[in-house]
Amino acid sequence: MVLVGVARLIESVPNISEGRRPEVVDAAVAALRSSPGLRVLDVQSDADHNRSVLTVAGDEEALRIGLLALFAVASERIDLRTHQGEHPRLGAVDVVPFIPIEGATMADCVALARRVGQEVAERHGIPVFLYEEAATAPHRRNLEDIRRGQFEGLADKLKDPAWSPDFGPAAPHPSAGATVVGARMPLIAYNINLGTADLDVARKIARAIRHSSGGYRHVKAMGVMLEERRLAQVSINMTDFKRTPLHRVFETVRAEAERYGVHVVGSEVVGLVPSEALFDVAEHYLRLESFSPAQVLERKIRDSE
Amino acid sequence: MVLVGVARLIESVPNISEGRRPEVVDAAVAALRSSPGLRVLDVQSDADHNRSVLTVAGDEEALRIGLLALFAVASERIDLRTHQGEHPRLGAVDVVPFIPIEGATMADCVALARRVGQEVAERHGIPVFLYEEAATAPHRRNLEDIRRGQFEGLADKLKDPAWSPDFGPAAPHPSAGATVVGARMPLIAYNINLGTADLDVARKIARAIRHSSGGYRHVKAMGVMLEERRLAQVSINMTDFKRTPLHRVFETVRAEAERYGVHVVGSEVVGLVPSEALFDVAEHYLRLESFSPAQVLERKIRDSE
Repeated sequence: MVLVGVARLIESVPNISEGRRPEVVDAAVAALRSSPGLRVLDVQSDADHNRSVLTVAGDEEALRIGLLALFAVASERIDLRTHQGEHPRLGAVDVVPFIPIEGATMADCVALARRVGQEVAERHGIPVFLYEEAATAPHRRNLEDIRRGQFEGLADKLKDPAWSPDFGPAAPHPSAGATVVGARMPLIAYNINLGTADLDVARKIARAIRHSSGGYRHVKAMGVMLEERRLAQVSINMTDFKRTPLHRVFETVRAEAERYGVHVVGSEVVGLVPSEALFDVAEHYLRLESFSPAQVLERKIRDSE
Repeated sequence: MVLVGVARLIESVPNISEGRRPEVVDAAVAALRSSPGLRVLDVQSDADHNRSVLTVAGDEEALRIGLLALFAVASERIDLRTHQGEHPRLGAVDVVPFIPIEGATMADCVALARRVGQEVAERHGIPVFLYEEAATAPHRRNLEDIRRGQFEGLADKLKDPAWSPDFGPAAPHPSAGATVVGARMPLIAYNINLGTADLDVARKIARAIRHSSGGYRHVKAMGVMLEERRLAQVSINMTDFKRTPLHRVFETVRAEAERYGVHVVGSEVVGLVPSEALFDVAEHYLRLESFSPAQVLERKIRDSE
């Protein structure tokens, strides 16, 4: 076991426009691994989408080196002119978010997005858009808005002054298109199961809590049916657990369900969750006064010399 | 940032019978630091007790090497025949608990206690008692029972077959006495503040939850007065948060307080808390189904190659 220094930990989830040729995905992963301090946590390829989602973590320098190597490989091996797939995309490396995990702030991630974006533009002549927390204008925050028109509409889009790139030329890279780099909070996939087989109740509750229909700012939600268990579920994406915490969403779902005479039978976190999201829940229910994550034993051990 | 391999993390809190001569405490800390993989997290010396509490963490090998070095220094520099202090003690290194933190079980800590105990006995001729989870008989679990009679009564105690040592000779080491080595869960110091200045309410609740008067198995508690805030507080030591979790104690205190028309205004964790104790609280209140600490992002990153 080697645990050295104060961990300064940022996650990144580059999405590349290749999900069918394993040798190209392998080359992309090898490029990331060529950065000594970078950890490759997960690789998910989807042939229908013709896209791979790579999850990595490290400090700023490890991420910068690994991502620049990834851009070099992807620009060489992926050609958007012949790329087909169900998922919308603008470029060979389509999107690169930076996510603060521990010992790093959102401002650090924004600075890293700007630095990596600038270097990618300078080295490869790829136009770069900054998105989410790194966006340079409100209309450029949302990934779907930036990507609208896709690679095929990119040349025209870049001529529009509203869509001039943040770095690089106002014309697509011939084969690699454009790329979107930014900073955001970690996503948490969180589902709440209801003691009813009535899907309509789950749908009504989803509408009550999600931002798009008047609910919490950082919640996306829909009602789905768990056929095997014959339970309706409120399926939720939490996009900023610091501003819209898990316990507030849970309690609101519980209260809304009561209105229909329905109980919450359980909830589940799908995939990974930052420890702080769970600490915040404990802090809320235990009514903790002046709790700091620095009091967590494992963090103290990691941060100790 | 260097985070390598699956962390196998055990904490130890050796107590040494020296709290007045800083040069001896420094030598003890230096001995621990001589083990490359060992982290020294905290050093607390008390002159009245003439005792120092050293907190360290690492894997088994790092702990074994560091603790053997500590025993060598303490046996040489501390003489129980002239030691005076308010705190009960049997030996130069008085007690060494091993505490599972991450990737290590209680069984691992018991095995480590036996190994370190045996080596200390063989190298230094010091009698060793195993305590708590490592104890070899029920009457030998409790540290206070083992330590009763102190260094001054040790020669007689060791002649009693009920108190023959687990390792080493049935006679005290002339200057270093005996030592107690074992395994236990981490302690959590947890206080719950009541919306009343009536200390009697806090005392009654403390009696309701603590093991010694009929309460939870792994709870010690007393009522105290926070004079500045004019609040009564239930001051709690949680000795096994897996078997008696924080949320159960919190809810019981809340229910008992209601009976006196008193609200819980807040609670506090004093010092360090294992992350799992807080994850368990979140799991309880969110009614999480099939949650695993392996889903925690930081752990996944640490455990990844």
